[in-house]
Formats: sequence, C-alpha cells, structure tokens
Amino acid sequence: MTATPTPRVTIKDVAARAGVSKGAVSLAFNRKPGLSEATRERIFRAARELGWAPSSTARTLAGSRVDVVGLAVCRPARLLGLEPFYMEFVSGVESVLVERSCSLLLRLVRGQDEEVRLLESWWRGRQIGGSILVDFRADDPRPAAAGRLGLPAVAVGHPSLTGGLTSVWTDDATAVTEAVRYLAALGHRRIARVGGAAALGHTSIRTAAFDEAVRALEPPARAWQTATDFSGDAGARATRSLLAAAPPERPTAIVYDNDIMAVAGLSVAAEMGLRVPADVSLLAWDDSQLCRLTHPTLSAMSHDVHGFGADVARTLFGVISGEGPGSHPVPTPVLTPRGSTAPPKA
Amino acid sequence: MTATPTPRVTIKDVAARAGVSKGAVSLAFNRKPGLSEATRERIFRAARELGWAPSSTARTLAGSRVDVVGLAVCRPARLLGLEPFYMEFVSGVESVLVERSCSLLLRLVRGQDEEVRLLESWWRGRQIGGSILVDFRADDPRPAAAGRLGLPAVAVGHPSLTGGLTSVWTDDATAVTEAVRYLAALGHRRIARVGGAAALGHTSIRTAAFDEAVRALEPPARAWQTATDFSGDAGARATRSLLAAAPPERPTAIVYDNDIMAVAGLSVAAEMGLRVPADVSLLAWDDSQLCRLTHPTLSAMSHDVHGFGADVARTLFGVISGEGPGSHPVPTPVLTPRGSTAPPKA
Repeated sequence: MTATPTPRVTIKDVAARAGVSKGAVSLAFNRKPGLSEATRERIFRAARELGWAPSSTARTLAGSRVDVVGLAVCRPARLLGLEPFYMEFVSGVESVLVERSCSLLLRLVRGQDEEVRLLESWWRGRQIGGSILVDFRADDPRPAAAGRLGLPAVAVGHPSLTGGLTSVWTDDATAVTEAVRYLAALGHRRIARVGGAAALGHTSIRTAAFDEAVRALEPPARAWQTATDFSGDAGARATRSLLAAAPPERPTAIVYDNDIMAVAGLSVAAEMGLRVPADVSLLAWDDSQLCRLTHPTLSAMSHDVHGFGADVARTLFGVISGEGPGSHPVPTPVLTPRGSTAPPKA
Repeated sequence: MTATPTPRVTIKDVAARAGVSKGAVSLAFNRKPGLSEATRERIFRAARELGWAPSSTARTLAGSRVDVVGLAVCRPARLLGLEPFYMEFVSGVESVLVERSCSLLLRLVRGQDEEVRLLESWWRGRQIGGSILVDFRADDPRPAAAGRLGLPAVAVGHPSLTGGLTSVWTDDATAVTEAVRYLAALGHRRIARVGGAAALGHTSIRTAAFDEAVRALEPPARAWQTATDFSGDAGARATRSLLAAAPPERPTAIVYDNDIMAVAGLSVAAEMGLRVPADVSLLAWDDSQLCRLTHPTLSAMSHDVHGFGADVARTLFGVISGEGPGSHPVPTPVLTPRGSTAPPKA
C-alpha cells in the first residue's frame, strides 16, 4: 500500500505544474502565510499528481518526536456528543497519547472525500505524525490515499473493509451470532435487531451475521432488522414501531447496536406498559456504565471501548516507529447477562 | 491581560540567553527538526523570560486562516469519556469549527502547570491559532500565561475565576438557587446536593449558592452537600450513603451536579426499594438525552450544552479576529420538571 514518490520529480516540477514559484511551494508545505487557500490547494494537487513530497516531511518524523495524531470523524456534530462509544474510544486514545505528551487533532468531516483532502493537508502541512481512520464503508478511498501519501495510519475496522492498512477490529459477526444464539437458547423465536447506520461497513457485517444466525436456528425463528443513526431518539422510534404490533407480530427480544438505543428502548417499553424482561427482552451493545445504571440493568454485548481506543493508539505508534503489533482484532464482545433478558412468557 | 513584548528584544538576545545560534531559535519557532526537546525548551524559556515572540507569529495569524484551536482538559482519561457534558460541549465546539474547516487539538493534561507549558509550546510552535480554557480553579495560572504569550483564548468560567480573559459562563449561583427554591416550594425541607469536583471554581460557586439558598428558606430546612468526581459510580455511592439513613436523617430530595450521577441515583433508589418521586425526589443537571430516557424521566436543570460549546468556539474566533461578542454568560439553566420530582410524602 505504500507508494514511493518518483525520485526524479523535484520541487521545480511541482512549482511549474502549479504555475507558482519554488518559494510558494515551500511556503505551502511549511504552513507559512502569504498564499491563498486556492493556491495552496493547487500546489498540493500538483504535488499529489506528481507523487512529490518534501523530503523534510520524512526528516521531521525521523528526527523528532510525533506530538500530534489525527482523527477525523464523519458524522453530524450533535450525534458525536450523544454516543458514549465515541467518547470512550477517544478517552482510550487519549490515555495512551498523554503518556507520550501527544495531542489528538480532531476534526468533523462531511464525507470521505473531504477526509482524504484533510489527511493530505494535515500530513503535507506536517500537522500530524499519523492518523486513526474510523467508520469504514464499502469502496473506501482512504486506504489508497494513505498509501499514496505515505501517511502512517491505523484503520479501525475489519480487514475486509480497510484495503490493506494496519487494522484493529472487533469481530462483530461472532458477537452478533452469540447474541442471537443466547436469545434463542432462552426460548425466543421472534427476535429483532435495531441496527446502526446502514452505510457503515461494520453495520453490514452485523446485518449479514444476524440474518445467518437467525436462519440457522432450529426450530425456525422470525426476525426483524432496522437501521438507525445510532441516536437514542432513533432507537426509541424503532422500538415503538416494533412493539406496536400485536403479539404474534411483535418481537419478544430486541438486540441494539449500541447502549444509548437500548436505554431508549427500555424507556419505550415502560411507556407502552410492557415489562422488561417479562414481556420483552432487551440486549444492548458496547456496555458503557449506562447499562449498569438503568433499572432493570441492561444485559449487553460488552467490550472495553476505552481499551479499544488505547490499543488503536498504541498500534498507530507501532506503525509510526515500524515496531508494533500490526493488524489484530481486539477481544470479541462477550455476553453479559443482567436484568433485561429472560425467557419469553409461555 | 495582553502583555506586549518589549520591542528592543531581538532574536539575537534570545539566542544568546539560550546559548544557541539565531538559526536554532528560528528552527524552534518554526517547528523544524534538528533540535533536541531540551534545547527547544531552553529556547522557549529564554524567549518567555525576555518577553520575545517571533513577529511571524503575529503575521501568521493576521495573514492566514486559523485552522486549529486547542483544548486541554485536566482529568483522568476514563472520566472524560463517561461524562455526557464534555462530549456534548466538544460536539458543540466542533459544530462551529467544521464550518470553518478548523480542527480541534485535544490534549489531556495532569495539572495546570502542564497545561501552561503545553499552551506555550502549542502557541510558540504555531500549532494553534487560539485556545479554549476550561475547568478554572482558584489562583489559576492560565490567564497570566495567556496574557504573557499573547495567546488568543476564551475562558469557560465565571469572570470571578478567569482573571480578565474573555469569558463565557453559566450563572451557576442563580440556577442552584432556583433548584433549591423549587424543591422547597414542593414542600421539601431535607435537601441534599451531590456536587462535582471540589477543586473546581464552578463547584465552589454552586456550593456557596446552595448553602445560601437553603439558609434563606422559611421555615428552615436541613441540607447535606457532598463532593464527587462527577462519575456515575461516585454519584451512586453518595446516593447510597444519603438514603441509608432513617427518615428524619434522610433527605427527601437530592440535587445532582450532572446527569450521569442522577441516573445512578435513580438506580440506587430502586435498588434500595425507594420510589422516585414518592419517597425521594431527584433533580439532575445538564440534561443530556439521558434524562428523557430513564423511567421515571428525570427532572433537570436544563441547558443547551451543545449550544454552549458552539458559543465558546464562536467567541474564540471573535477574540482571534478582534471582532466578537466578548465576555458574556450563556442562558441560565432552567428548571425542567419531569417525573422524578414531587412533593414529599406527608
């Protein structure tokens, strides 16, 4: 995946292609003032097209400590603040960065193309020594971009999604399968899943694994799956819709793709006069402290999200230094039964 | 608060004092490789002692867009991820940064002196165009440091704590007083407060206001106050301790300094067989979506934390550009009664 810049291309070629002086190229790559945004962009584009990078970029990394790593997140600002997963993940990343007096450069982006441009600008402008990449989708452009730039990066996602980048991932398929088998073992034969954002690769993996796990059940079971934006409000709406049906059409167990949606589901069940777990079992994912603070407490597919973030940060430093664990999964989420799951009534 | 560097000091003086060449000073301030950490620190210290800053710092800000702002947070990594306030605040900051293609440089620090050194390094190294300062304490060293550096900054805290910096704050005293008066109007005469971290200035403001509001009640009321680290676990412990007493020694209403502790309190009440609000009323603070997802829903002192973060970011851009709203409070939290507060029994 790592592209070596063509050695014969020089700063002069970049300047010529961009229609500027060599000095202007130098200004752009050294983050100096005096250039318009448009000119800077033109220079970076010319350098990218020619495969040129200032050799000082490499020297900066070899000769000095990495003190900033990047993390771009593509989702609405408001959702970022509401989902415990991201903040626990970031807190885990920070727990490793703080040991190295390193800061996290955090940016919200509106799409993957914007993220690719951002990574290029961060890297060529020497603002970061490496980056964490999250939320992989099908045909993700970021692995190719990281390779072209020579940007040290760790992908948070299953290797089937991350195009050869060093990856750290959760085995979602195994965890979903365990969730379905557990509910089936309790006797549930009408099982729903309130999933996350449909465009994300790990959501697709969970959706396929859920389908397969339900199909494998004997005796056969009915299943429902629905996508959301991971918010509590969307989880509440999905739960209301599932529980509004009369019993033969109503699931007796619901699996949620995160914990905030499961907390919302608990509240909707109460609002509709259904008892948890007597009338409906609920199973959360991620298992932040929220799951232990509700009444009844929420059974969950638990994993250590803080530890996941810390592992990703350590892996990134490994990529940067050339010594590290390389691609590996984090421990698979394990079923933690609490008060919200039980056999269905008769 | 803004200190003007003495005009006669030159880069030569800084080099002499640090015992290095002018070129080394230039390398340090331009974040170029080739210097040891110790040498960089010595140069920055010499510059600080002489009150010197490279004029290019000013030019960078005047001549080019600010594309990074800083935020250092002094608390354990694990707590950062668990408190909804910070996540919502950061998401509000990001909502304004994303409009300006600006990133947030986030760093956990272990204390205020470390933060002061970090701000100096960020600013002199031209890594940030300004910074958001949070969690003010008594005798906070950051206002003086920001003034000495000429660092554009916005302080999140009451002007009594922020030493003349441009400040954005919540009127905690008024909000606490409203909370106490509301519970008293319901008939409560045994009122507890589970507070936040005792060392923080805004916690002291709330503690003093709570005392005063309780003392002003007629007929007189009993009160309890306790400090925590803002975590759900600490909120659960504090609630257990308060509710373990027999009724005349047990509060009939508890106010919490954030929402995660109130959610934990709700769970503790259920675990102890006490009904909310019949046996004990609970009142949360911050009011993230958590408060609407519990059963009963949590009454709360509500404010728009996302909007607070956005306001702080806009104010910082105002400080940087020289045009902006200046110091101002955000809207005072308002009482939002829900299902967890009611008159006490008998």
